[in-house]
Amino acid sequence: MQEIRQRVAENFARQGLMRTLGAALELVEDGEVHISMPFSSQLSQQLGYVHAGAVTSIVDSACGYAGLTRAPAGHDIVTAEFKTNFMRPAIGERFLAVGRVVNAGRSLAVCTGEVRAYTANSVEFKVVALMQATMVFVATER
Amino acid sequence: MQEIRQRVAENFARQGLMRTLGAALELVEDGEVHISMPFSSQLSQQLGYVHAGAVTSIVDSACGYAGLTRAPAGHDIVTAEFKTNFMRPAIGERFLAVGRVVNAGRSLAVCTGEVRAYTANSVEFKVVALMQATMVFVATER
Amino acid sequence: MQEIRQRVAENFARQGLMRTLGAALELVEDGEVHISMPFSSQLSQQLGYVHAGAVTSIVDSACGYAGLTRAPAGHDIVTAEFKTNFMRPAIGERFLAVGRVVNAGRSLAVCTGEVRAYTANSVEFKVVALMQATMVFVATER
Amino acid sequence: MQEIRQRVAENFARQGLMRTLGAALELVEDGEVHISMPFSSQLSQQLGYVHAGAVTSIVDSACGYAGLTRAPAGHDIVTAEFKTNFMRPAIGERFLAVGRVVNAGRSLAVCTGEVRAYTANSVEFKVVALMQATMVFVATER
Repeated sequence: MQEIRQRVAENFARQGLMRTLGAALELVEDGEVHISMPFSSQLSQQLGYVHAGAVTSIVDSACGYAGLTRAPAGHDIVTAEFKTNFMRPAIGERFLAVGRVVNAGRSLAVCTGEVRAYTANSVEFKVVALMQATMVFVATER
Repeated sequence: MQEIRQRVAENFARQGLMRTLGAALELVEDGEVHISMPFSSQLSQQLGYVHAGAVTSIVDSACGYAGLTRAPAGHDIVTAEFKTNFMRPAIGERFLAVGRVVNAGRSLAVCTGEVRAYTANSVEFKVVALMQATMVFVATER
Repeated sequence: MQEIRQRVAENFARQGLMRTLGAALELVEDGEVHISMPFSSQLSQQLGYVHAGAVTSIVDSACGYAGLTRAPAGHDIVTAEFKTNFMRPAIGERFLAVGRVVNAGRSLAVCTGEVRAYTANSVEFKVVALMQATMVFVATER
Repeated sequence: MQEIRQRVAENFARQGLMRTLGAALELVEDGEVHISMPFSSQLSQQLGYVHAGAVTSIVDSACGYAGLTRAPAGHDIVTAEFKTNFMRPAIGERFLAVGRVVNAGRSLAVCTGEVRAYTANSVEFKVVALMQATMVFVATER
């Protein structure tokens, strides 16, 4: 896992969008990755809540990295498609995207993810978004 | 349409994320809205291409505004869910999200969208992402 | 729950497709419904396994009935949309669709479901399909 | 195309579910396939309309065969996942599923489909369902 954690951390550091969104890598375990994002008005939709696109961005990355922990040797991972339900407005001071691998085959991985909204100093959360995604393992070009 | 165009433009101006992504409203017609976004390394995924989340953000907004042009009086629109396929890496100098209403009922609208990638000075494009989305009309609180 | 169980059972009995597929209602709890379906060559795709459409049919019904257990009084439920991943061929002697409510609001419910494949006399199963669905509560016409 | 048409027709004839649903292959062109299905109470949901699962089954097959017309030599096709929106009740005397390839890569194809409902003797139709699907090309085992 140490090698995978380092690989995920280096990969995450290259994602300009994660930096732009203020996102941080919080946990990398076998088949599960967490990414956090603090609230910012720079991420808002028209009502001031966090835009579905920002919510989706962090849970897509969390799902992708969860899949990467199960990638065959010499393979990277890219998103083939995802579907996200938005169950309530993304209101909170901090958001945590949790991505998990449900099944990893030779060429495809199926992942599920959720985004949790926290208010200040709270350990309780509300799930604001639910993702089901298909990732593709692609051989690393050398 | 003039009233709707103004309403969409004002709504768009309140979306902090669109500003953060460098996105601009390009066209508002009945049932169809276009949003552009120039390439920036601040939107990148690990390979330097535009992140699926940024691509999704602009086409979600385009679909939502397309739906808004068909909203019943006194109603706003929010995204219930969307599904996006990523057909090739989002490589380009400029991206255009095209959102269209397929069906608008009393409470739900179904929209489809695509994101087109353009290279410099080109009129030709490649479709990098395809969205199918469900939007909900919500009565405006007063 | 007894009233809801009866309502679900009566509703299920009216679904001609469930009868055609050989499906049976197995469990109705608050927010969770199970539907079983034995293997039959009448449900096959080209390789002799169960067709994705049959698999989807039972998990759609399971999700819908799970949502129905949370419907506001005087409301029925219909499927707005679903997304299903097929993780492995639907090979087995018996299939069980498990539908669960993740979130039920005033007008929409988000459900997840899975279809489990069992071989003869086995208690072990493999998950062959994963669904994420949006259901709409509609006022019963009187 | 003649060889592909014959391959699709033979493959379709092996799908037990298509026979069970009363479905028929109507058109096979490069990248586009049509499948029809007459109304039957054996396909119904609780209100007597055609069940979302039956609607989905024919458009899944139509999308799959559309993808098959673009499969690399020596490859079959299976459904990785699909997402279907149901825009209105499936009321009609005859249904036609239209599946089209949007993009075919080396390992994946993205397809879109719709299901049209016709009343008796009518050439006009209403689109009752919209699909966006991901298909996988798999090497034929020999």
